[in-house]
Parts: sequence; structure tokens; C-alpha cells
Amino acid sequence: MSMFHGLSAFPITPCNASGEVDTDTLGHLITRLEDAKVNSIGLLGSTGSYAYLSRAERLRAIKAAVATLTNTPLIVGVGALRTDDVVAYAQDAQVAGADALLLAPVSYTPLTQDEAFAHFETVAKATDLPISIYNNPGTTHFNFSLPLLQRLADIPNIQAVKMPLPAGEIADDLAQLRAALPHDFAIGYSADWGCAAGLLAGADAWYTAIGGTLPKPAMALTKAAQSGDVDLTAKLQAALQPLWTEVQAYGSIRVAYTIARHLGLTDAVPPLPVQLPPAEVEARIIAALEHLDLSKRLRPA
Amino acid sequence: MSMFHGLSAFPITPCNASGEVDTDTLGHLITRLEDAKVNSIGLLGSTGSYAYLSRAERLRAIKAAVATLTNTPLIVGVGALRTDDVVAYAQDAQVAGADALLLAPVSYTPLTQDEAFAHFETVAKATDLPISIYNNPGTTHFNFSLPLLQRLADIPNIQAVKMPLPAGEIADDLAQLRAALPHDFAIGYSADWGCAAGLLAGADAWYTAIGGTLPKPAMALTKAAQSGDVDLTAKLQAALQPLWTEVQAYGSIRVAYTIARHLGLTDAVPPLPVQLPPAEVEARIIAALEHLDLSKRLRPA
Repeated sequence: MSMFHGLSAFPITPCNASGEVDTDTLGHLITRLEDAKVNSIGLLGSTGSYAYLSRAERLRAIKAAVATLTNTPLIVGVGALRTDDVVAYAQDAQVAGADALLLAPVSYTPLTQDEAFAHFETVAKATDLPISIYNNPGTTHFNFSLPLLQRLADIPNIQAVKMPLPAGEIADDLAQLRAALPHDFAIGYSADWGCAAGLLAGADAWYTAIGGTLPKPAMALTKAAQSGDVDLTAKLQAALQPLWTEVQAYGSIRVAYTIARHLGLTDAVPPLPVQLPPAEVEARIIAALEHLDLSKRLRPA
Repeated sequence: MSMFHGLSAFPITPCNASGEVDTDTLGHLITRLEDAKVNSIGLLGSTGSYAYLSRAERLRAIKAAVATLTNTPLIVGVGALRTDDVVAYAQDAQVAGADALLLAPVSYTPLTQDEAFAHFETVAKATDLPISIYNNPGTTHFNFSLPLLQRLADIPNIQAVKMPLPAGEIADDLAQLRAALPHDFAIGYSADWGCAAGLLAGADAWYTAIGGTLPKPAMALTKAAQSGDVDLTAKLQAALQPLWTEVQAYGSIRVAYTIARHLGLTDAVPPLPVQLPPAEVEARIIAALEHLDLSKRLRPA
């Protein structure tokens, strides 16, 4: 099992209004994830607001995570608009002690497939760390063609992909990717509500946003799906469904902050212009958390 | 006529590989625009790669433009992911002597309508300069609802909008906007191939990417359309069509750099990961320029 297998949990990066990272709170959030035995930490993912953080603050977050973790692999998001900035962030992460990188083709001018390839190739050559391709069209608005994924998989330290949920069946999507990519290339999914189905179908990883704040339910769902227990997976999915519904409507980052604040983990808010969801949505998220607790009591598995 | 009327020409911002602005070349590009009597300069637009530039380099570009211009209004793009960064860029622009601002809702986490409103409101309160709303879903992936535009138009120094081309008839789109917005709110369009139709229909402005490098053909087209000369407008459009075709396929920024390099104005390239188009596209762009020259000789108007 490489570090790109199992549950990769993405915490928020609590910051003040100026974008300075609250490293004490971040350390506490990461300790919760390690205590829940997640398989890796996904620091500075989309839920971790990496795109809104300066180079200095990204580095402070990485150093805090490295200082906190004892034996859980640390995957660090290094996406940025400029290739030279990504190279610098990747080298910072390596020097600071990250175990792996996650790279999204962040764009303003929409990128061509060849431009994205060159971007990834340049970054991969500038680091010794293994890289997971962060395929997230919802934020980057870039779509990887299958031939582009194949070209990238030929680069030695590009070893994994974090896929969005497909329009069709996830098992079909996974089978198509398996057939096209090297046998040891790790294929994982994100978009929390569909990922247990991915694990049941044999995906290598679930990159979870909600699991960065609720690691125990996410680990329980991961184990159920990895063990092929379809019934238990369905029950745990049902318990989480009210939360997934809010995530689908309001986005992982707004929901994760709402949960973390409700649990008393932080009083941080997302970076403006991103805001917490409106009060009525917050109430539904809290009700969904209570539904989750109730479900767990009813179904102690 | 406010500064948000007529032809607003957006130059590239020539930089070295590290993103440092070549202010001498930028000054020369801007002088060409002023000599062609464009109605305003759109500095640091999408074609001016603003999203890829640091605060310090944006400010250097603004200072170079202010130092160069004699009597053409300077509109400065100030978009960024973080609201506090945009406030800082807006204040930099005002202090440096810009005449107006152009603000796009740059996003990574997709923004809600309310979040975009708060973002614009915060920036508008932080500056005395008039602001044009930069509505460019092709790069920001944000769509302004008509009610949001109405709310924004109620803010005193938000005085204009730069619209994308509509899916339907531009005259219908303009009529709908005119009916919904204050009578003195300036409505302009971008996406070069459709803007002469906008001016013919009575739009206030054409925000031009190609006109930032080819100001004379763009001014000729602007004058033809503003004077209601449908036949001449059609002829000038036809002369430019081969160029529009490449812009539609490869994007304004790649085409603008190709033209500027071909004309000997600069040897700069776009900021990586954005690249110049492939050689066969460059050849077609050069052929399109020759077609334009030939058309102008044939139709000296």
C-alpha cells in the first residue's frame, strides 16, 4: 500500500482574516485525524483553502503538520496559477518534510492538454516526492483527457490520481482507468457522497473533505466499503446522506467550517470572499450531525 | 461620455520568465494605443495576465502606464482570489493614478451571488475610483444574475459592466440590461468577434483584447459601428474574421502575444503554464494579419 491508498483526510486550514494560519488549531485538527487512523493527511487541499494562501503561510502550515504527525503520511497540495510558483511550493514542501504532493491544474486562462502536461512535467522534475494528480474540474475547470492521464502516468514520480465522480457508473469509470493506466498507478476519488461506491468497486483511495473534520464516520465508511460489506456501507451512507445533501448544495469548504465551528474545534471562517453558509443551512448541517450521531447509536457497527 | 465608453484596449503585460514586468515595452505598447486614439486603456485585463502577477509587479505596470499616458483614461484590472488582496490592489491603483478599476470575481471555490456582492461592495467602499464589473465567465466561471447586477449598480462607484457575448442576439441582451439597470450605467461587451454588433445595437463600449495589440483596425471597426454604418462594419468584420477564428479557438492572450511578437513589439511569452500556440497556429495568425492588411488596401475606408 502506497501513501495514495485508503482514506486521505483533508482538514480545513484555520486562518485569521489576513490569511495567517493558526498553527496550534491546525495541529489539533491533524492530531484528531491521526487518532482516527486515517491513511493519510491531505494538507492544503481545496477544503484547506490552499489557493487563498501565500507561500509563507503554506509553508507554516506544512511545518506545523510535520511537527504534529507521528506516523501518518502527509500529502501537500501545491497548486497555483504560475508554474514557477508551484515549483517553489513543491520544493518548500519537500524541504519541510512532506511525504507526497497533490497538484491541481489551477487555471485562469483555460489550459490546453499540452500546457497542463508541461506544467506537471516541470513540477515533477523539480521534486523527488511522489505526486498525485488532483483532477477537480469543479474548481480548476480543467478536464484531463485519458491520453493526458496516460502521458502523465509515464512520469516516474507521478503515481496517483484523485478523480472527480464520473457522470456514469463509478465502476465503469474505474475499469476504464485501470485498463488505460499502469497497474501500480493509484486511482482514488473525491466528492464524498460517491466515494464509498468507488471503494466498493475497488478504487485505491477516497480523498475526503468531510473526513478532514469528521474522520471517524469517514473511517467507518471506508472500512465497510474496503471489506466489501455492501449492507453496512449502505447504512453508513444513509446516516451521512443528510450531510452529503448540504455538501452537494453548498460545497465542502463551507460545510467543513460549519461543522468544525459547531464542534468547537475553531472559530475560524473561510477566506473572504468565501463565506459560511446562511443560518438556515447551518441549522440543517447541525441537524445532519445529530442525525449521524443518532444513526450511529441505532447501528453501532 | 464616461471613461467606460467607446473602445477600451487591453494590452498584454510583457514580462520575463519570473513575472517581472518589462515596463519599457509596456510603455511603448501603451503609447501605440494612445496614438491610435483608443477611448481608454484596459491595463491588467485577462489579456494583460493580471491573475499571474504579484502585487509589486501589478503596481510597477500601473506606474509605467501612468507615466506614459497623456490624456487617455487608464482602467486597471484588480481581480484576485482574496477580498483583502483586491482591496490592496485597488488602493495601490488609486494612489498610483489610475482613473478607474475593472473587477472580476476571480474564484477557486465557486462563489455564490451573495458572496460576489459582498466582495464587490467591500472593494467599492475601499476606493474612490469608478468600477466596471468584469463579467467573464470564461475565466472566472462565475455567472452574474440580473438581480446581482442590479444590486451592484446601486453602489455609487460601480458604474459599468463588461459583459460576455450572450448566447442569443446581442441587441436583445442589451435591451434587457438597459431595462434593468440605471440609465447612466455603462454597458459594454467583450469577445472581440461579437462586439461590433454590440456597438451597432447601441452598447456603450467594446472592451477589446485584440485591439490592445492592433488598435487601428479595432478603432476603425468601432467608428464604423458607432456611426451606424452597417456595410462598412460588415466589411471590416470580414477583414478581421480570420483573426477572430484563431481567437475563438486559441484564446485572446495566446493570439495577442503571437501578433505582438510577429510585429516586433516584444519577444515576451505568456506566463507559464500558458504557452504560445503551436507553430501551425502561429502561421495562420500571421496569414490572418496579412489578410487584414490586404483587406485594408482593398477597402481603404
